[in-house]
Amino acid sequence: MAVYTHLGAEELAELIATYDVGELVSAKGIAEGVSNSNWIIETSGSDGTGARFILTMYERRIELSDLPFFLSLLDHLAARDCPVPGTIHDREGAAFRMIGDKAVALIEYLPGVSVDHPTANQAHSVGKALAQMHLAVDDFEHQRHQTMGLAEWDHTINRCGAEALDRIDPALADFAFDELGVLAGDWPGGLPHGVVHCDLFPDNVLMLGDEVSGLIDFYFAATDFIAYDLAVTHAAWSFERGGHSYRPEIGAALLRGYQSVRELSAAELAAMPVFVRGACMRFISSRAADWLDTPDGALVARKDPMDFVRRSQFYASSGSALFTPHV
Amino acid sequence: MAVYTHLGAEELAELIATYDVGELVSAKGIAEGVSNSNWIIETSGSDGTGARFILTMYERRIELSDLPFFLSLLDHLAARDCPVPGTIHDREGAAFRMIGDKAVALIEYLPGVSVDHPTANQAHSVGKALAQMHLAVDDFEHQRHQTMGLAEWDHTINRCGAEALDRIDPALADFAFDELGVLAGDWPGGLPHGVVHCDLFPDNVLMLGDEVSGLIDFYFAATDFIAYDLAVTHAAWSFERGGHSYRPEIGAALLRGYQSVRELSAAELAAMPVFVRGACMRFISSRAADWLDTPDGALVARKDPMDFVRRSQFYASSGSALFTPHV
Repeated sequence: MAVYTHLGAEELAELIATYDVGELVSAKGIAEGVSNSNWIIETSGSDGTGARFILTMYERRIELSDLPFFLSLLDHLAARDCPVPGTIHDREGAAFRMIGDKAVALIEYLPGVSVDHPTANQAHSVGKALAQMHLAVDDFEHQRHQTMGLAEWDHTINRCGAEALDRIDPALADFAFDELGVLAGDWPGGLPHGVVHCDLFPDNVLMLGDEVSGLIDFYFAATDFIAYDLAVTHAAWSFERGGHSYRPEIGAALLRGYQSVRELSAAELAAMPVFVRGACMRFISSRAADWLDTPDGALVARKDPMDFVRRSQFYASSGSALFTPHV
Repeated sequence: MAVYTHLGAEELAELIATYDVGELVSAKGIAEGVSNSNWIIETSGSDGTGARFILTMYERRIELSDLPFFLSLLDHLAARDCPVPGTIHDREGAAFRMIGDKAVALIEYLPGVSVDHPTANQAHSVGKALAQMHLAVDDFEHQRHQTMGLAEWDHTINRCGAEALDRIDPALADFAFDELGVLAGDWPGGLPHGVVHCDLFPDNVLMLGDEVSGLIDFYFAATDFIAYDLAVTHAAWSFERGGHSYRPEIGAALLRGYQSVRELSAAELAAMPVFVRGACMRFISSRAADWLDTPDGALVARKDPMDFVRRSQFYASSGSALFTPHV
């Protein structure tokens, strides 16, 4: 949640001049993104009527070699009327440019706000938007290896180690090692796959009223089972913010909205109970590692991995009841 | 440089509804301000054509009892065509509201960018805008005690103590204690005074090309000698960013621009050499205290007080040469 790099007005004006968007009028660093710096950029617009953009500088975690994948995914989805920000190409047609050793991209600015406490109607819209995206990637020709999958969770949890995990919470290590065993044994195969978002928390969805105006932050997008993306979204949306109290009307509305656009197969529905537990483990492992990497007293808010332990336990106790054909 | 408080879309929408500005369309936390949280707010506008604002939440350092002073100062200056953001009053006429125990104000959004490496023309415009502000406060009826003046520098430096200061730099303590003695002996009296900005760094000036489009961040404004405000601005603008290499064309243009609107009296000109050293001590003392208050390894960039020690030494060696009647 910061701007990691100072970009002076002079540098920004020079950068903006490489695009056909008019002249720089305003630039404000925004407090979003943990692996990149972002600015709201206002320009005079190519037609003089004013225009706004998000400028992203890729700082960490993102491999430069992945950037063409992420940006072409945005363009692919935007061209298919998914509510995602398209990238602005410079006068030479490039989707990103370098400033020193860092890549920057200018992307569309979308209206909307991220909700804290979604309503069922909002969850229904999110489900629809996610399913539309899943249909729209069908003819997207690029692939990206899932770097946050089962093997990575296992690796991350083992790298943390039982002793360190138990310093976060005395129940964490036992849970994590047991759960990794369950997931490795039960993880399904042979289901429809494609490029999926994999991080569609409420923070990454912009809404205007009940409608989705933007899906953002595709920097965990990877090739994986499509239903697993719905499971991530379910685990991210269907509980009280920052807690583990299940909101049944939200989970149900999300599934209904999704299936109003793309029906889940019987095999996909059957996989959901393990996929949602996998989704929880994905966030348990990364939050545990981040927790242990963050020094005590640092000004960064740490996210408690135990929230997702409890969500996972809720899912385990619910079994297939949440994912019947007619929820 | 952060957003210290999470405000959900629902809370924000409720807040915005108390103003006659249309409906909330977008809200982005911005990475500006060290004592408050700020968001760029977009609304549908009272006439449906869209509007933008800055929402500020006062977090630290600012006394709630000072807020009416700061906000009425903005309104006073905006009404006199100074390029400052006016405050938006709510439907009941209030300039600020409370969210829990924190005050928030909605203020005008101004275009422009902050320059890193001003040109002489830009410095000339800044001088003019500062002088216009100094004329415009003439009939401002409120006062605010200068809480960052000579007595406070002395107090802050003594609270740090010689040993801690020397941990920052071995030359700092000797310099600071000697300089405080000089300033206490030479500080002028009986000059024109009024409400002044006292923190007009390039970061706090928005520019469109060579013109000033906004003076912002008035939260150090206080009643003090008017020429001292010019001295602060001189010390903040006339050196290479983050360094101490003097840029004579910038200092000269700033003074010329200022005097094109408000001529300095002979007594004010004579006071400038000690005022600029006072301005340096103001930032030396606060930076030293912030440095010692910031734990090693914290993610916040510390500002080196030695930059202003060297600026002060430059001023001491220049004497009155920079501030003759016809620079």
